[in-house]
Amino acid sequence: MNPPVNEVSSPPANPALKLRPAQPDDVPLILSLIRELAEYEKEPDAAIATEEDLLRCGFGPEPYFRCLIAEWNGQPAGFALYFFQFSTWEGKPALYLEDLFVRPQFRKQGIGRAFFTRLAQIALEKQCTRFQWEVLDWNQPAIDFYQALGAKVMRAWLNMRMIGPELNQLAGEK
Amino acid sequence: MNPPVNEVSSPPANPALKLRPAQPDDVPLILSLIRELAEYEKEPDAAIATEEDLLRCGFGPEPYFRCLIAEWNGQPAGFALYFFQFSTWEGKPALYLEDLFVRPQFRKQGIGRAFFTRLAQIALEKQCTRFQWEVLDWNQPAIDFYQALGAKVMRAWLNMRMIGPELNQLAGEK
Repeated sequence: MNPPVNEVSSPPANPALKLRPAQPDDVPLILSLIRELAEYEKEPDAAIATEEDLLRCGFGPEPYFRCLIAEWNGQPAGFALYFFQFSTWEGKPALYLEDLFVRPQFRKQGIGRAFFTRLAQIALEKQCTRFQWEVLDWNQPAIDFYQALGAKVMRAWLNMRMIGPELNQLAGEK
Repeated sequence: MNPPVNEVSSPPANPALKLRPAQPDDVPLILSLIRELAEYEKEPDAAIATEEDLLRCGFGPEPYFRCLIAEWNGQPAGFALYFFQFSTWEGKPALYLEDLFVRPQFRKQGIGRAFFTRLAQIALEKQCTRFQWEVLDWNQPAIDFYQALGAKVMRAWLNMRMIGPELNQLAGEK
């Protein structure tokens, strides 16, 4: 049973659910889940990542991300992709959740909630003092759920991003 | 000379300025610069990081950050601390700038601008498709400067953060 959004008490462990770290041979599955998430967000063309990208960036000598896979009765049900940041003032790493997706047929089983719990555990194992992620400002149900978990919206901070031609132009300055 | 905020043309290279990657023996300097930044932002008590934290998290087997040091005529003038993230849709890393600080007596020499240029170069070397950072929403002069560099404000995304007791409580759920 999925806990109601406004309830923070712990759901019982469910033997049907297994969360495990992704391995290199999960790359086709991860890419499929990334594309399913992009389709769900109605931006199927935005997911241009390839299997080669994921293998190089997630499982090479310099990994840029880590990934958990959820299995429900042995079936791949979703993924959580994350990486570590660093807080200079605190002098400690922070866990950043980049993507979380549960396939529609596996929802309402507490899988999303289980991912959050596991990620909080990983954060503490790594001595992180923060667990962070982003949410679209119109997604009030998600914001409510996150706040019920104990997260706060950091409204004072704006995200700046430079891409494409501007990035190349800036890099071209000597 | 510092370029005006609304000018994107390249400043000339200045032989007084050297940007170099930080080494482990820069840790006391980095910590001092972190504390100077916290004082400048009127939050001196917020910088609780120690030399041990920085050595472990920046120069150990699993580095969580990288750092550039600026020297002006051989004097330490500032730092830029950054790390890499990952964009799942693009399948490429992203460079995230966590902190940038130039000591007051070294300002108006284009050092901040030189940091941005070098970081953009590092981003492209690492095949990043994004260069990202955050800014406080009331800091309009900084926002203007960043936009003149070619960055965009990603206003639709809110930052969520979980810390302290809430993080421990969530992790305690099995």
